[in-house]
Amino acid sequence: MISFGSDNHSGIHENILKAITSANVEHCFAYGEDEFTNKAIGLFRDLLGDVEVFFMLNGTGTNVSILKSITRSYNSIICATTAHINVDECGAPENHTGCKIVSIPTTNGKLTPELVKPYLVEFGCCHHSQPKVISISQTTELGTVYSASEIKALSDLAHSFEMYLHLDGARIANGVVASGGDIRSITADAGVDVLSFGGTKNGMMMGEAVVFFNKQLAVGFEFERKQMMQLYSKMRFVSAQFCEYLKDDLWLRLAQHSNDMAKYLSSRMSEIKEVIITQNVEANALFVIFPKDKTEIIREKYFFYDWDEAKGEVRLMCSFNTTKQNIDEFINFIKETI
Amino acid sequence: MISFGSDNHSGIHENILKAITSANVEHCFAYGEDEFTNKAIGLFRDLLGDVEVFFMLNGTGTNVSILKSITRSYNSIICATTAHINVDECGAPENHTGCKIVSIPTTNGKLTPELVKPYLVEFGCCHHSQPKVISISQTTELGTVYSASEIKALSDLAHSFEMYLHLDGARIANGVVASGGDIRSITADAGVDVLSFGGTKNGMMMGEAVVFFNKQLAVGFEFERKQMMQLYSKMRFVSAQFCEYLKDDLWLRLAQHSNDMAKYLSSRMSEIKEVIITQNVEANALFVIFPKDKTEIIREKYFFYDWDEAKGEVRLMCSFNTTKQNIDEFINFIKETI
Amino acid sequence: MISFGSDNHSGIHENILKAITSANVEHCFAYGEDEFTNKAIGLFRDLLGDVEVFFMLNGTGTNVSILKSITRSYNSIICATTAHINVDECGAPENHTGCKIVSIPTTNGKLTPELVKPYLVEFGCCHHSQPKVISISQTTELGTVYSASEIKALSDLAHSFEMYLHLDGARIANGVVASGGDIRSITADAGVDVLSFGGTKNGMMMGEAVVFFNKQLAVGFEFERKQMMQLYSKMRFVSAQFCEYLKDDLWLRLAQHSNDMAKYLSSRMSEIKEVIITQNVEANALFVIFPKDKTEIIREKYFFYDWDEAKGEVRLMCSFNTTKQNIDEFINFIKETI
Amino acid sequence: MISFGSDNHSGIHENILKAITSANVEHCFAYGEDEFTNKAIGLFRDLLGDVEVFFMLNGTGTNVSILKSITRSYNSIICATTAHINVDECGAPENHTGCKIVSIPTTNGKLTPELVKPYLVEFGCCHHSQPKVISISQTTELGTVYSASEIKALSDLAHSFEMYLHLDGARIANGVVASGGDIRSITADAGVDVLSFGGTKNGMMMGEAVVFFNKQLAVGFEFERKQMMQLYSKMRFVSAQFCEYLKDDLWLRLAQHSNDMAKYLSSRMSEIKEVIITQNVEANALFVIFPKDKTEIIREKYFFYDWDEAKGEVRLMCSFNTTKQNIDEFINFIKETI
Repeated sequence: MISFGSDNHSGIHENILKAITSANVEHCFAYGEDEFTNKAIGLFRDLLGDVEVFFMLNGTGTNVSILKSITRSYNSIICATTAHINVDECGAPENHTGCKIVSIPTTNGKLTPELVKPYLVEFGCCHHSQPKVISISQTTELGTVYSASEIKALSDLAHSFEMYLHLDGARIANGVVASGGDIRSITADAGVDVLSFGGTKNGMMMGEAVVFFNKQLAVGFEFERKQMMQLYSKMRFVSAQFCEYLKDDLWLRLAQHSNDMAKYLSSRMSEIKEVIITQNVEANALFVIFPKDKTEIIREKYFFYDWDEAKGEVRLMCSFNTTKQNIDEFINFIKETI
Repeated sequence: MISFGSDNHSGIHENILKAITSANVEHCFAYGEDEFTNKAIGLFRDLLGDVEVFFMLNGTGTNVSILKSITRSYNSIICATTAHINVDECGAPENHTGCKIVSIPTTNGKLTPELVKPYLVEFGCCHHSQPKVISISQTTELGTVYSASEIKALSDLAHSFEMYLHLDGARIANGVVASGGDIRSITADAGVDVLSFGGTKNGMMMGEAVVFFNKQLAVGFEFERKQMMQLYSKMRFVSAQFCEYLKDDLWLRLAQHSNDMAKYLSSRMSEIKEVIITQNVEANALFVIFPKDKTEIIREKYFFYDWDEAKGEVRLMCSFNTTKQNIDEFINFIKETI
Repeated sequence: MISFGSDNHSGIHENILKAITSANVEHCFAYGEDEFTNKAIGLFRDLLGDVEVFFMLNGTGTNVSILKSITRSYNSIICATTAHINVDECGAPENHTGCKIVSIPTTNGKLTPELVKPYLVEFGCCHHSQPKVISISQTTELGTVYSASEIKALSDLAHSFEMYLHLDGARIANGVVASGGDIRSITADAGVDVLSFGGTKNGMMMGEAVVFFNKQLAVGFEFERKQMMQLYSKMRFVSAQFCEYLKDDLWLRLAQHSNDMAKYLSSRMSEIKEVIITQNVEANALFVIFPKDKTEIIREKYFFYDWDEAKGEVRLMCSFNTTKQNIDEFINFIKETI
Repeated sequence: MISFGSDNHSGIHENILKAITSANVEHCFAYGEDEFTNKAIGLFRDLLGDVEVFFMLNGTGTNVSILKSITRSYNSIICATTAHINVDECGAPENHTGCKIVSIPTTNGKLTPELVKPYLVEFGCCHHSQPKVISISQTTELGTVYSASEIKALSDLAHSFEMYLHLDGARIANGVVASGGDIRSITADAGVDVLSFGGTKNGMMMGEAVVFFNKQLAVGFEFERKQMMQLYSKMRFVSAQFCEYLKDDLWLRLAQHSNDMAKYLSSRMSEIKEVIITQNVEANALFVIFPKDKTEIIREKYFFYDWDEAKGEVRLMCSFNTTKQNIDEFINFIKETI
């Protein structure tokens, strides 16, 4: 099957799989007390500076554990209506944090200070949830990308209200590549307090990391992780993946490929005048509207998800192992179909 | 390092690792909509009958998601004081279920109807948490094993109060082997309502399964799993492990080996008259008291955990890759030390 | 102080206070095992039919305990953006139910099937909170009133998706009076599953009731109430209030007065052409926009709350002890001011 | 009915009822923004020093809101097995705090440093709930009373582990009287961090107070109270009760009477050699064992609760309106019966 459904439809990059195999020797301390984990944390610090790092099992667990750990249940968390935490986590953020998720409509999945400010009200009034976190996604769920200055503007706003900025980086690698290649400029230097650093969608078998730039927020997080059921016993097998992932910029090279493929797909798709492209292609996603009666025919052969059924908008994702040949065949098939 | 610390200090069985590699081809649906998951569920049904099966990320997540899904927050959950859910999950059961965990002291980690009955009171009185689940571990955290009839007696008791019996089978394979080799006799036939079927401690890289014998209890569990952050996107890589794990009784053969090694370790240890063995060795754990001033010397070379510091009791775990040679060298070292 | 701030700025109706005094004799069973509570429940059944009734301490506790008891945490609850449960309970619904609160913008505080239907999607998809409750307020927070047929349309919609209709009746008396005077027609007969029946805002000292029309939903509610900390020990003093409140239609007479006063206030206010009335006056609330520079001057003498600061919209509430004289003096003061 | 069942079987002291009536004038700000509440808080500060005070609806809500506000869900809370928070709140502490409640068996309901110390372990280990609060009851649920030095010893222990001492003072007035009459000596001066100050069991209609001696812990509590559904809209009617309750030592006089009555009851009961008194009578409770076949006969006329059914132990509570005549008649009836 060739799928444009999601970047988690792809498998494991061969180097990552080799790293798992290499880590499979003898006995090893569990729960992160091992050399692989120490090394991986060191690599994160080389990359990101003086940070606290915790390895996690999956993306929802990563986002939710962070949000729980930096809030009280009477807080609210502000995000775009399209945010993964708002629509794709089965209410886990509400359930585990107890907080109100305040979602703000956007045109392109990106929050701005202007969009957020009207919601920063009622501070001190006990009848209303107290805003505490702005959470943004890089890349966004609409395949768009924040610039460093856009992120900085949001963190400045957050900090001026004693709030925090959380970056959901399930696709952080794609975001780094798309925004110029320097992760520090869009995280530490942009005032991000805490980052969900994703690996699963970009060639890892599994594994995400919580990165606290604001180290005070990390106090007690080891207990939150355990209680939130995100502590992996044989952690070396996640840590070893991260060691490989961060080595020689593998993570950036894979993301560069995904992004390039999406740009190529976009370019080829624009050859077909019947297809409407609905969002800027800034990372590894392409949103399009096929002619109404053609979508299901195309889907018989190539898998992808509906995004907005009412509009007929669908989402096409490229991943680290999408090839030009895949795309060319896909485009040819669409051309034949339309 | 040779560790007797935990069966999760071992790595991945080579066949399991091959299965992961074999599953790493092309694109694949995520979240369990894949052929590997279908096949693995089928193997579980071959093994266990007409059950509902859900794959999970880790043991705490498995236990807690089950307990949450079969209770209301005003219920209580009854277990042994030594139960993993009581002492080793950082309060996750209380936090996620909202229930009171009622723990009962035992001598050997095993509950009995006589021990439980005094706690089955105050039904209908709104001031008190209402008992709803008896949760037992097979094997127990003290390395002991329930017989089929002992489990049946507990499920009968539970059902007579409209309660459920949950079996924490983080080490179910060891329990099956130790109790005669027939998993149905200690689960489905013994009235177990729902089982945490563990894989990680017995040679899998990661992966646990929830098995509902009482299928009514499974209604809505797919939402609980997601909200409890235990849904793995690239699920094929857990499912493929289970396919291999259940094939040709690999799971039982690995557990047989661990259990045999613990018996061998026990037998060799009993040669040393200064060492006190404190629990029956029925599965893959051995509990001993070393001479007071020798424990730390032994630990310098061989890793193990304290169990009861006041008594000087330590726990020695054998795993699928513990060898006779490991044990012989360990025993020799102890003999030299003492 | 004369306040148009809220109907909870009023005190206790004299008959209610006498009822408390009369109940203050000798010893009495606590927690509802008393004759006053039995009698009050009987009066509710006379009024509403074969219902289950539980007395509660306050409005937030009533709404939240209901919503928690009829949902699982993976559900969502649909309401108007203006709903009390959405904006005035400090996130208590999210925290205690774990559910996502899905709020829908309206023009007049009232949901309709057309507004709700687009949100009844993604059933069965584990990534998304599953809609389970439609919650509406009667009267609404904008002082508007649902007709019996409007409520019936919503309950039909809810039931067609195996969902429930909850009616937040913090001001149910005002709603009954405004909608024709027959409570059954807008509750039991309109398919309401469960009702928050308020007393505090209409002349009681304190006291709310949960009324289950769908009696299956009441199973276990006594435990929910206790765990949600809404069980009052000396319950006779709430029950005695309800006995008096329901006697000789006192509750309806008080609400009729409040509603009449709001209509009178509206009528007098419309004499002042500089004041804009922004919502239909259907119950005991009036929403107006004063000339921009006059609001604070008026507020120096008469208390009321801002509703929409951006628009300059304020809310004026009448209560059981608002008098025509209060209103006439208020209007005169505004006229002098403007 | 004359009841020795509970001190909440009594009603409202006449002065308290008058205070409610006096507060029932005109309109008044809700939610504590009123002069009665300001005055009552001032009286608490006169009594207790530089404290933060919040008025609450009931005892369970008071204890639970405090415990939630001073913990993270990965903490544990240590109490006696007999503690109200452990056995009489339907699991509300676990549900709302998410914490593990660690209960310690005692002979007389009182914790001591020696009893607590063995549970102050595993700090820093992420698998285990981290102890954060010691919660004691004054008077205890067994009618016993801590001395100032006993409380100080527990607070010193708590503070040496960066933990807090919570005092459940549902019967604080009885405890103050019994321990010498000086509330500061057993609270502020004894290192108590936060106090549940009860009123309902001692002649108030309803009303409890949270008193923070450790004022840092009070940050954000107004939001916790609201979210925990313990904020009373017409708060003046609780505050006015507290004003009266604290005036001219009414609270202490009422408690003195209850305690005196219990001592008198104990003294009279000791005339009957067939009755065994099982606990020291230090406040307003008496625990006795009646001859086995007589208990139900006595209960036909006088109400009381079983405490330990296995032992035949029952609890007899005296309250502010128990009279010598009640007791004499009760004793005479028992004598006749036995």
